[in-house]
Amino acid sequence: MTDTVDQTEGRPSRRRGRRPGGTDTRTALLDAARQVFSEQGYDGATVRAIATRAGVDAAMVNHWFGSKEGLFVKAVLQLPFDPADLFTRLAEGPADALGERIVRTFVTTWDATGGGHFTALVRSVSSHEQAAHLLNDFFVKEVFTRIANQAAPDQAHFRGSLVGSQIVGLGMARYVVRFEPLASADVEQVVAAVAPNVQRYLTGNLG
Amino acid sequence: MTDTVDQTEGRPSRRRGRRPGGTDTRTALLDAARQVFSEQGYDGATVRAIATRAGVDAAMVNHWFGSKEGLFVKAVLQLPFDPADLFTRLAEGPADALGERIVRTFVTTWDATGGGHFTALVRSVSSHEQAAHLLNDFFVKEVFTRIANQAAPDQAHFRGSLVGSQIVGLGMARYVVRFEPLASADVEQVVAAVAPNVQRYLTGNLG
Repeated sequence: MTDTVDQTEGRPSRRRGRRPGGTDTRTALLDAARQVFSEQGYDGATVRAIATRAGVDAAMVNHWFGSKEGLFVKAVLQLPFDPADLFTRLAEGPADALGERIVRTFVTTWDATGGGHFTALVRSVSSHEQAAHLLNDFFVKEVFTRIANQAAPDQAHFRGSLVGSQIVGLGMARYVVRFEPLASADVEQVVAAVAPNVQRYLTGNLG
Repeated sequence: MTDTVDQTEGRPSRRRGRRPGGTDTRTALLDAARQVFSEQGYDGATVRAIATRAGVDAAMVNHWFGSKEGLFVKAVLQLPFDPADLFTRLAEGPADALGERIVRTFVTTWDATGGGHFTALVRSVSSHEQAAHLLNDFFVKEVFTRIANQAAPDQAHFRGSLVGSQIVGLGMARYVVRFEPLASADVEQVVAAVAPNVQRYLTGNLG
């Protein structure tokens, strides 16, 4: 773990030493969160337990990460976008463009890190049972199933898990196993090819 | 490694001792194949190199596995079906039922091992660069892209890699990360939901 403040978040920077609210606190919370989420799963892990493990006040979680969800995304999923915005960003706009927005958002986000975040995530999922639960809790239940529920409430859970299968598979194919030419295709080509399939999972007839 | 003959293959069974063509030879070839495929990749590995590593005659590869491809499937992918038949089995019949046949074949096969084969495969893919190449060479190039090329020759390679993304994602969702209710859905429900998407990748308009 480095102790550097992430400048892209615009946090007050360059605090030094072990002081409440400083970057050491942020780092300690990230370390503690990885441990507690791995041990308890997303639903079982409490903000209090994580703060206690880090030796800081629970209010520091909100100060640095906004919420338990925000801490989870930074510590475990290591996603660069704000978690509070993800569902809203994806779910807004016309229902028949949901697939397109989901695929474009994920591919653009993952491409920006050269697939490194997704690869790290999959490696932790493949080797840690808990990481798989977390992925399920966060992406499928909190994002895809909520979007499905808004767009086509019948079978929303099944729809959400189907979207999860394609998004995880896209990440695997593009970044981990690198199926060409999909791995090197430009974002718009991927969106045009994959979005209608994600859209069908969300709002189409599933048979 | 066990030394037991797989009775389902109908091989002459219960040979004992280190004799040419015996089950020790089969085991030695499987061990050598895993090593050589990992070191050289599928295309780089030769039947001769594997046989030499195993200390047996190259003819034993054909005797026990039919071909390099057959050895690869048994040793690395650990699939229970005959590789020579896979493309044929999937590609036969009406072109508009390809998606259905692919999804049903993979889900039925993987379900039969409780997902164990797929999970082992993904773990090796996530941790070994070579295993990813092998998966690409075998499934995407030799099966999905060939099927796509027969059904809709335009963009066959892109289509093959898209099918790969959904099939790998389905395996991840059903067996590794276990997105419910997809993970517990019965085979026919999965086929009805996923097959039209695979079909679109093979023969539909990709935008």
